[in-house]
Amino acid sequence: MPATPIPDIVIGRLPLYLRGLAQMAKEGWEITSSQELGGRLGISSAQIRKDLSQFGEFGKQGTGYDIAFLIEQLRRILKVDRVWDVALVGVGDLGRAVAHYAGFLDRGFRITALYDNDPAKIGGQVARMVIQGTAGMVDDIRARGVRVAMLAVPAAAAQQVTDQLVEAGIQAILCYAPTSVSVPEPVYVQYIDPVVHLQRMTHHLP
Amino acid sequence: MPATPIPDIVIGRLPLYLRGLAQMAKEGWEITSSQELGGRLGISSAQIRKDLSQFGEFGKQGTGYDIAFLIEQLRRILKVDRVWDVALVGVGDLGRAVAHYAGFLDRGFRITALYDNDPAKIGGQVARMVIQGTAGMVDDIRARGVRVAMLAVPAAAAQQVTDQLVEAGIQAILCYAPTSVSVPEPVYVQYIDPVVHLQRMTHHLP
Repeated sequence: MPATPIPDIVIGRLPLYLRGLAQMAKEGWEITSSQELGGRLGISSAQIRKDLSQFGEFGKQGTGYDIAFLIEQLRRILKVDRVWDVALVGVGDLGRAVAHYAGFLDRGFRITALYDNDPAKIGGQVARMVIQGTAGMVDDIRARGVRVAMLAVPAAAAQQVTDQLVEAGIQAILCYAPTSVSVPEPVYVQYIDPVVHLQRMTHHLP
Repeated sequence: MPATPIPDIVIGRLPLYLRGLAQMAKEGWEITSSQELGGRLGISSAQIRKDLSQFGEFGKQGTGYDIAFLIEQLRRILKVDRVWDVALVGVGDLGRAVAHYAGFLDRGFRITALYDNDPAKIGGQVARMVIQGTAGMVDDIRARGVRVAMLAVPAAAAQQVTDQLVEAGIQAILCYAPTSVSVPEPVYVQYIDPVVHLQRMTHHLP
Protein backbone atom coordinates (compact mmCIF):
# COMPACT_ATOMS: atom_id res chain seq x y z
CA MET A 1 0.00 0.00 0.00
CA PRO A 2 1.24 3.51 -0.72
CA ALA A 3 2.53 5.72 2.07
CA THR A 4 0.49 8.79 1.07
CA PRO A 5 -3.29 8.51 1.06
CA ILE A 6 -4.89 8.16 -2.37
CA PRO A 7 -7.26 11.05 -3.18
CA ASP A 8 -10.88 10.08 -2.58
CA ILE A 9 -11.80 11.02 -6.13
CA VAL A 10 -9.40 8.34 -7.39
CA ILE A 11 -10.80 5.77 -4.96
CA GLY A 12 -14.25 6.69 -6.27
CA ARG A 13 -13.30 5.59 -9.79
CA LEU A 14 -11.81 2.23 -8.78
CA PRO A 15 -15.22 0.53 -8.30
CA LEU A 16 -16.09 1.58 -11.87
CA TYR A 17 -12.88 0.03 -13.17
CA LEU A 18 -13.59 -3.11 -11.19
CA ARG A 19 -17.14 -3.33 -12.53
CA GLY A 20 -15.98 -2.83 -16.11
CA LEU A 21 -13.19 -5.38 -15.79
CA ALA A 22 -15.49 -7.95 -14.16
CA GLN A 23 -17.88 -7.52 -17.07
CA MET A 24 -15.05 -8.05 -19.57
CA ALA A 25 -13.89 -11.15 -17.70
CA LYS A 26 -17.44 -12.50 -17.83
CA GLU A 27 -17.42 -11.96 -21.57
CA GLY A 28 -14.27 -14.04 -21.82
CA TRP A 29 -11.60 -11.35 -22.21
CA GLU A 30 -8.22 -11.97 -20.56
CA ILE A 31 -6.19 -8.90 -21.53
CA THR A 32 -7.26 -5.29 -21.96
CA SER A 33 -5.82 -1.84 -22.45
CA SER A 34 -6.58 1.48 -20.78
CA GLN A 35 -8.05 2.59 -24.14
CA GLU A 36 -10.42 -0.35 -24.29
CA LEU A 37 -11.52 -0.09 -20.67
CA GLY A 38 -11.83 3.67 -20.95
CA GLY A 39 -13.97 3.36 -24.05
CA ARG A 40 -16.41 1.17 -22.17
CA LEU A 41 -16.57 3.41 -19.14
CA GLY A 42 -16.47 6.80 -20.81
CA ILE A 43 -13.25 7.64 -18.93
CA SER A 44 -10.06 8.71 -20.70
CA SER A 45 -7.28 6.16 -20.99
CA ALA A 46 -4.82 8.69 -19.53
CA GLN A 47 -7.00 9.01 -16.44
CA ILE A 48 -7.15 5.25 -16.00
CA ARG A 49 -3.39 4.84 -16.37
CA LYS A 50 -2.76 7.67 -13.92
CA ASP A 51 -5.21 6.31 -11.35
CA LEU A 52 -3.87 2.76 -11.49
CA SER A 53 -0.24 3.90 -11.38
CA GLN A 54 -0.88 5.22 -7.87
CA PHE A 55 -1.09 1.64 -6.66
CA GLY A 56 1.93 0.25 -8.47
CA GLU A 57 2.62 -1.17 -11.89
CA PHE A 58 -0.37 -3.21 -13.01
CA GLY A 59 0.16 -3.14 -16.74
CA LYS A 60 3.16 -3.72 -18.95
CA GLN A 61 4.00 -1.29 -21.73
CA GLY A 62 2.72 -2.77 -24.96
CA THR A 63 1.06 -5.88 -23.55
CA GLY A 64 -1.83 -4.31 -21.65
CA TYR A 65 -3.44 -5.32 -18.38
CA ASP A 66 -4.04 -8.88 -17.26
CA ILE A 67 -7.73 -8.62 -16.38
CA ALA A 68 -7.84 -11.35 -13.72
CA PHE A 69 -4.77 -9.92 -11.98
CA LEU A 70 -6.10 -6.36 -12.09
CA ILE A 71 -9.47 -7.50 -10.71
CA GLU A 72 -7.69 -9.24 -7.86
CA GLN A 73 -5.64 -6.12 -7.07
CA LEU A 74 -8.64 -3.79 -7.18
CA ARG A 75 -10.64 -6.11 -4.94
CA ARG A 76 -7.78 -6.06 -2.46
CA ILE A 77 -7.43 -2.27 -2.56
CA LEU A 78 -11.20 -1.77 -2.16
CA LYS A 79 -11.26 -4.48 0.52
CA VAL A 80 -13.91 -6.50 -1.25
CA ASP A 81 -11.68 -9.56 -1.38
CA ARG A 82 -13.94 -10.52 1.53
CA VAL A 83 -17.71 -10.30 2.11
CA TRP A 84 -19.06 -7.51 4.32
CA ASP A 85 -22.25 -8.04 6.30
CA VAL A 86 -24.69 -5.18 5.73
CA ALA A 87 -27.62 -4.02 7.86
CA LEU A 88 -30.55 -2.50 5.96
CA VAL A 89 -32.79 -0.07 7.81
CA GLY A 90 -36.18 0.78 6.34
CA VAL A 91 -38.13 -1.89 4.49
CA GLY A 92 -40.53 0.21 2.41
CA ASP A 93 -40.75 -0.04 -1.39
CA LEU A 94 -37.13 0.93 -1.87
CA GLY A 95 -35.73 -1.11 1.02
CA ARG A 96 -37.57 -4.13 -0.29
CA ALA A 97 -36.08 -3.65 -3.76
CA VAL A 98 -32.61 -3.27 -2.28
CA ALA A 99 -33.07 -6.39 -0.12
CA HIS A 100 -33.99 -8.38 -3.24
CA TYR A 101 -31.11 -7.02 -5.33
CA ALA A 102 -28.99 -9.95 -6.41
CA GLY A 103 -25.91 -7.93 -7.33
CA PHE A 104 -24.33 -7.51 -3.90
CA LEU A 105 -22.89 -10.88 -3.02
CA ASP A 106 -20.39 -11.41 -5.79
CA ARG A 107 -19.14 -7.87 -5.30
CA GLY A 108 -18.32 -8.00 -1.61
CA PHE A 109 -21.56 -7.44 0.30
CA ARG A 110 -24.33 -9.48 1.87
CA ILE A 111 -27.39 -8.02 3.55
CA THR A 112 -27.75 -9.98 6.77
CA ALA A 113 -30.26 -8.00 8.80
CA LEU A 114 -33.38 -5.90 8.10
CA TYR A 115 -34.87 -3.36 10.48
CA ASP A 116 -38.05 -1.28 10.39
CA ASN A 117 -40.05 0.62 12.98
CA ASP A 118 -43.45 -0.30 11.54
CA PRO A 119 -45.17 -2.87 13.82
CA ALA A 120 -47.06 -4.16 10.77
CA LYS A 121 -43.78 -5.09 9.11
CA ILE A 122 -41.79 -6.40 12.08
CA GLY A 123 -41.70 -10.20 12.04
CA GLY A 124 -42.49 -10.34 8.34
CA GLN A 125 -40.02 -11.79 5.86
CA VAL A 126 -38.28 -10.19 2.91
CA ALA A 127 -35.63 -11.97 0.85
CA ARG A 128 -35.62 -14.83 3.41
CA MET A 129 -34.79 -12.47 6.28
CA VAL A 130 -37.07 -11.60 9.18
CA ILE A 131 -37.67 -7.86 9.62
CA GLN A 132 -36.67 -6.80 13.11
CA GLY A 133 -37.86 -3.77 15.07
CA THR A 134 -35.59 -0.77 15.39
CA ALA A 135 -36.00 -0.87 19.18
CA GLY A 136 -33.35 -3.57 19.60
CA MET A 137 -31.34 -2.52 16.57
CA VAL A 138 -28.35 -0.95 18.30
CA ASP A 139 -27.69 -3.98 20.48
CA ASP A 140 -28.34 -6.38 17.65
CA ILE A 141 -25.96 -4.70 15.21
CA ARG A 142 -23.30 -4.45 17.88
CA ALA A 143 -23.69 -8.13 18.77
CA ARG A 144 -23.39 -9.11 15.11
CA GLY A 145 -20.34 -6.92 14.61
CA VAL A 146 -21.83 -5.41 11.45
CA ARG A 147 -19.93 -2.32 10.23
CA VAL A 148 -21.76 -1.36 7.02
CA ALA A 149 -25.38 -0.18 6.77
CA MET A 150 -27.83 1.01 4.15
CA LEU A 151 -30.45 3.54 5.09
CA ALA A 152 -33.77 3.50 3.23
CA VAL A 153 -35.91 5.47 5.66
CA PRO A 154 -37.80 8.74 5.04
CA ALA A 155 -35.70 11.91 5.14
CA ALA A 156 -37.29 13.01 8.41
CA ALA A 157 -36.02 9.90 10.21
CA ALA A 158 -32.59 9.73 8.60
CA GLN A 159 -30.55 11.62 11.20
CA GLN A 160 -32.03 9.81 14.18
CA VAL A 161 -31.45 6.39 12.64
CA THR A 162 -27.94 7.46 11.60
CA ASP A 163 -27.15 8.38 15.21
CA GLN A 164 -28.30 4.93 16.30
CA LEU A 165 -26.22 3.24 13.62
CA VAL A 166 -23.12 5.13 14.70
CA GLU A 167 -23.82 4.18 18.31
CA ALA A 168 -24.07 0.55 17.18
CA GLY A 169 -20.59 0.69 15.67
CA ILE A 170 -21.49 1.15 12.01
CA GLN A 171 -18.57 2.73 10.12
CA ALA A 172 -19.98 3.15 6.60
CA ILE A 173 -23.52 4.22 5.69
CA LEU A 174 -25.11 4.27 2.26
CA CYS A 175 -27.98 6.74 2.57
CA TYR A 176 -30.96 6.52 0.20
CA ALA A 177 -32.88 9.19 2.12
CA PRO A 178 -32.91 12.46 0.16
CA THR A 179 -31.15 14.45 2.86
CA SER A 180 -27.69 14.95 4.31
CA VAL A 181 -26.85 13.38 7.65
CA SER A 182 -24.10 14.26 10.11
CA VAL A 183 -21.72 11.62 11.37
CA PRO A 184 -18.64 11.83 13.56
CA GLU A 185 -15.22 11.04 12.10
CA PRO A 186 -14.22 8.47 10.99
CA VAL A 187 -17.67 7.24 9.89
CA TYR A 188 -18.21 7.37 6.12
CA VAL A 189 -21.44 8.29 4.36
CA GLN A 190 -22.33 8.02 0.68
CA TYR A 191 -25.63 9.13 -0.82
CA ILE A 192 -27.89 7.79 -3.51
CA ASP A 193 -30.42 10.38 -4.62
CA PRO A 194 -31.76 10.02 -8.16
CA VAL A 195 -32.71 13.69 -8.34
CA VAL A 196 -29.12 14.78 -7.72
CA HIS A 197 -28.05 12.72 -10.74
CA LEU A 198 -30.91 13.94 -12.90
CA GLN A 199 -30.22 17.59 -12.07
CA ARG A 200 -26.59 17.13 -12.95
CA MET A 201 -27.68 16.17 -16.47
CA THR A 202 -30.49 18.65 -17.11
CA HIS A 203 -28.04 21.50 -16.67
CA HIS A 204 -26.45 20.36 -19.93
CA LEU A 205 -29.65 19.87 -21.92
CA PRO A 206 -30.56 22.48 -24.55
CA MET B 1 -24.40 32.49 -17.93
CA PRO B 2 -20.61 32.29 -18.10
CA ALA B 3 -18.80 32.16 -21.43
CA THR B 4 -16.55 29.23 -20.46
CA PRO B 5 -18.19 25.92 -19.56
CA ILE B 6 -18.35 25.12 -15.86
CA PRO B 7 -16.42 21.93 -14.97
CA ASP B 8 -18.75 18.96 -14.62
CA ILE B 9 -17.43 18.27 -11.12
CA VAL B 10 -18.71 21.70 -10.04
CA ILE B 11 -22.08 21.08 -11.71
CA GLY B 12 -22.20 17.80 -9.81
CA ARG B 13 -22.08 19.61 -6.46
CA LEU B 14 -24.80 22.14 -7.25
CA PRO B 15 -27.68 19.66 -6.71
CA LEU B 16 -26.26 18.98 -3.25
CA TYR B 17 -26.20 22.69 -2.46
CA LEU B 18 -29.74 23.01 -3.77
CA ARG B 19 -30.94 20.09 -1.67
CA GLY B 20 -29.27 21.46 1.47
CA LEU B 21 -30.64 24.96 0.92
CA ALA B 22 -34.15 23.65 0.23
CA GLN B 23 -33.99 21.76 3.50
CA MET B 24 -32.89 24.90 5.37
CA ALA B 25 -35.69 26.92 3.75
CA LYS B 26 -38.18 24.25 4.86
CA GLU B 27 -36.85 24.61 8.40
CA GLY B 28 -37.53 28.35 8.25
CA TRP B 29 -34.04 29.71 7.62
CA GLU B 30 -33.73 32.77 5.37
CA ILE B 31 -30.00 33.55 5.41
CA THR B 32 -27.04 31.20 5.54
CA SER B 33 -23.26 31.19 5.15
CA SER B 34 -20.93 28.93 3.24
CA GLN B 35 -19.70 27.67 6.65
CA GLU B 36 -23.19 26.72 7.75
CA LEU B 37 -24.15 25.08 4.46
CA GLY B 38 -20.79 23.34 4.26
CA GLY B 39 -21.17 21.98 7.76
CA ARG B 40 -24.47 20.37 6.80
CA LEU B 41 -23.17 18.89 3.59
CA GLY B 42 -19.68 17.88 4.68
CA ILE B 43 -18.17 20.18 2.03
CA SER B 44 -15.64 22.89 2.86
CA SER B 45 -16.89 26.49 2.91
CA ALA B 46 -14.04 27.49 0.60
CA GLN B 47 -15.22 24.92 -1.95
CA ILE B 48 -18.79 26.22 -1.79
CA ARG B 49 -17.72 29.85 -2.21
CA LYS B 50 -15.45 28.95 -5.11
CA ASP B 51 -18.15 26.88 -6.85
CA LEU B 52 -20.84 29.52 -6.51
CA SER B 53 -18.53 32.34 -7.58
CA GLN B 54 -18.34 30.71 -11.02
CA PHE B 55 -21.93 31.77 -11.60
CA GLY B 56 -21.67 35.33 -10.34
CA GLU B 57 -21.95 37.03 -6.97
CA PHE B 58 -24.63 35.30 -4.94
CA GLY B 59 -23.55 36.30 -1.45
CA LYS B 60 -22.50 39.56 0.08
CA GLN B 61 -19.37 39.75 2.21
CA GLY B 62 -20.45 39.67 5.84
CA THR B 63 -24.18 39.20 5.34
CA GLY B 64 -24.24 35.69 3.90
CA TYR B 65 -26.46 34.13 1.26
CA ASP B 66 -30.16 34.85 0.82
CA ILE B 67 -31.45 31.28 0.74
CA ALA B 68 -34.55 31.87 -1.41
CA PHE B 69 -32.53 33.82 -3.96
CA LEU B 70 -29.77 31.22 -4.09
CA ILE B 71 -32.32 28.41 -4.50
CA GLU B 72 -33.88 30.31 -7.39
CA GLN B 73 -30.50 30.81 -9.07
CA LEU B 74 -29.45 27.18 -8.62
CA ARG B 75 -32.77 25.97 -10.00
CA ARG B 76 -32.25 28.16 -13.03
CA ILE B 77 -28.66 26.97 -13.57
CA LEU B 78 -29.66 23.32 -13.20
CA LYS B 79 -32.74 23.95 -15.37
CA VAL B 80 -35.12 22.61 -12.77
CA ASP B 81 -37.07 25.86 -12.69
CA ARG B 82 -39.40 23.76 -14.87
CA VAL B 83 -40.71 20.18 -14.62
CA TRP B 84 -39.15 17.51 -16.87
CA ASP B 85 -41.23 14.55 -17.97
CA VAL B 86 -39.40 11.29 -17.30
CA ALA B 87 -39.88 7.85 -18.87
CA LEU B 88 -39.15 4.88 -16.62
CA VAL B 89 -38.17 1.61 -18.27
CA GLY B 90 -38.30 -1.57 -16.21
CA VAL B 91 -41.00 -2.01 -13.60
CA GLY B 92 -39.51 -4.69 -11.37
CA ASP B 93 -38.98 -4.23 -7.64
CA LEU B 94 -36.68 -1.27 -8.11
CA GLY B 95 -38.66 0.39 -10.91
CA ARG B 96 -41.77 0.11 -8.79
CA ALA B 97 -40.05 1.78 -5.85
CA VAL B 98 -38.76 4.55 -8.11
CA ALA B 99 -42.23 5.06 -9.62
CA HIS B 100 -43.67 5.48 -6.13
CA TYR B 101 -40.95 7.84 -4.94
CA ALA B 102 -42.57 11.11 -3.96
CA GLY B 103 -39.45 13.22 -4.03
CA PHE B 104 -39.24 13.98 -7.74
CA LEU B 105 -41.97 16.49 -8.42
CA ASP B 106 -40.93 19.39 -6.25
CA ARG B 107 -37.36 19.00 -7.51
CA GLY B 108 -38.02 19.27 -11.23
CA PHE B 109 -39.09 15.82 -12.43
CA ARG B 110 -42.29 13.90 -13.04
CA ILE B 111 -42.46 10.29 -14.18
CA THR B 112 -45.09 10.27 -16.92
CA ALA B 113 -44.64 6.90 -18.62
CA LEU B 114 -43.73 3.37 -17.55
CA TYR B 115 -42.50 0.64 -19.89
CA ASP B 116 -41.73 -3.04 -19.40
CA ASN B 117 -41.32 -6.01 -21.74
CA ASP B 118 -43.07 -8.51 -19.44
CA PRO B 119 -46.51 -9.38 -20.88
CA ALA B 120 -47.70 -10.12 -17.34
CA LYS B 121 -46.96 -6.53 -16.33
CA ILE B 122 -48.11 -4.65 -19.44
CA GLY B 123 -51.49 -3.05 -18.86
CA GLY B 124 -51.10 -3.16 -15.09
CA GLN B 125 -50.97 0.02 -13.03
CA VAL B 126 -48.21 1.39 -10.82
CA ALA B 127 -48.42 4.81 -9.18
CA ARG B 128 -51.56 5.58 -11.21
CA MET B 129 -49.78 4.96 -14.50
CA VAL B 130 -50.46 2.13 -16.92
CA ILE B 131 -47.40 0.04 -17.77
CA GLN B 132 -46.85 0.00 -21.52
CA GLY B 133 -44.98 -2.56 -23.58
CA THR B 134 -41.50 -1.77 -24.84
CA ALA B 135 -42.59 -2.66 -28.39
CA GLY B 136 -44.16 0.75 -28.98
CA MET B 137 -41.81 2.61 -26.66
CA VAL B 138 -39.69 4.43 -29.22
CA ASP B 139 -42.68 5.92 -31.02
CA ASP B 140 -44.47 6.71 -27.79
CA ILE B 141 -41.54 8.55 -26.22
CA ARG B 142 -40.95 10.45 -29.43
CA ALA B 143 -44.62 11.44 -29.66
CA ARG B 144 -44.58 12.66 -26.05
CA GLY B 145 -41.37 14.61 -26.58
CA VAL B 146 -39.84 13.13 -23.42
CA ARG B 147 -36.09 13.79 -23.13
CA VAL B 148 -35.18 12.23 -19.78
CA ALA B 149 -35.35 8.53 -18.88
CA MET B 150 -34.59 6.23 -15.99
CA LEU B 151 -33.44 2.71 -16.69
CA ALA B 152 -34.27 -0.01 -14.15
CA VAL B 153 -33.81 -3.10 -16.31
CA PRO B 154 -31.38 -6.02 -15.79
CA ALA B 155 -27.77 -5.38 -16.81
CA ALA B 156 -28.07 -7.74 -19.77
CA ALA B 157 -30.84 -5.63 -21.32
CA ALA B 158 -29.38 -2.21 -20.53
CA GLN B 159 -27.51 -1.51 -23.77
CA GLN B 160 -30.37 -2.58 -26.03
CA VAL B 161 -32.90 -0.45 -24.18
CA THR B 162 -30.44 2.45 -24.11
CA ASP B 163 -30.12 2.27 -27.90
CA GLN B 164 -33.90 2.44 -28.18
CA LEU B 165 -34.09 5.39 -25.81
CA VAL B 166 -31.49 7.27 -27.82
CA GLU B 167 -33.41 6.49 -31.00
CA ALA B 168 -36.54 7.88 -29.32
CA GLY B 169 -34.81 11.20 -28.68
CA ILE B 170 -33.90 10.73 -25.00
CA GLN B 171 -31.00 13.03 -24.06
CA ALA B 172 -30.36 12.10 -20.44
CA ILE B 173 -30.45 8.62 -18.92
CA LEU B 174 -30.22 7.67 -15.27
CA CYS B 175 -29.09 4.05 -15.28
CA TYR B 176 -29.84 1.78 -12.31
CA ALA B 177 -28.55 -1.30 -14.12
CA PRO B 178 -25.15 -2.34 -12.72
CA THR B 179 -23.33 -1.94 -16.02
CA SER B 180 -21.93 0.79 -18.25
CA VAL B 181 -23.80 1.67 -21.42
CA SER B 182 -22.54 3.45 -24.53
CA VAL B 183 -24.37 6.47 -25.88
CA PRO B 184 -23.54 8.84 -28.73
CA GLU B 185 -22.71 12.47 -27.95
CA PRO B 186 -24.42 14.56 -26.72
CA VAL B 187 -26.54 12.08 -24.71
CA TYR B 188 -25.78 12.10 -20.97
CA VAL B 189 -25.72 9.07 -18.69
CA GLN B 190 -25.47 8.92 -14.93
CA TYR B 191 -25.32 5.72 -12.90
CA ILE B 192 -26.75 4.60 -9.60
CA ASP B 193 -25.09 1.46 -8.35
CA PRO B 194 -25.12 0.90 -4.59
CA VAL B 195 -22.09 -1.40 -4.74
CA VAL B 196 -19.95 1.32 -6.30
CA HIS B 197 -20.75 3.56 -3.33
CA LEU B 198 -20.20 0.79 -0.79
CA GLN B 199 -16.84 -0.16 -2.28
CA ARG B 200 -15.72 3.45 -2.16
CA MET B 201 -16.22 3.36 1.61
CA THR B 202 -14.86 -0.08 2.48
CA HIS B 203 -11.47 0.94 1.09
CA HIS B 204 -11.22 3.31 4.06
CA LEU B 205 -12.38 0.90 6.76
CA PRO B 206 -9.77 -0.56 9.08
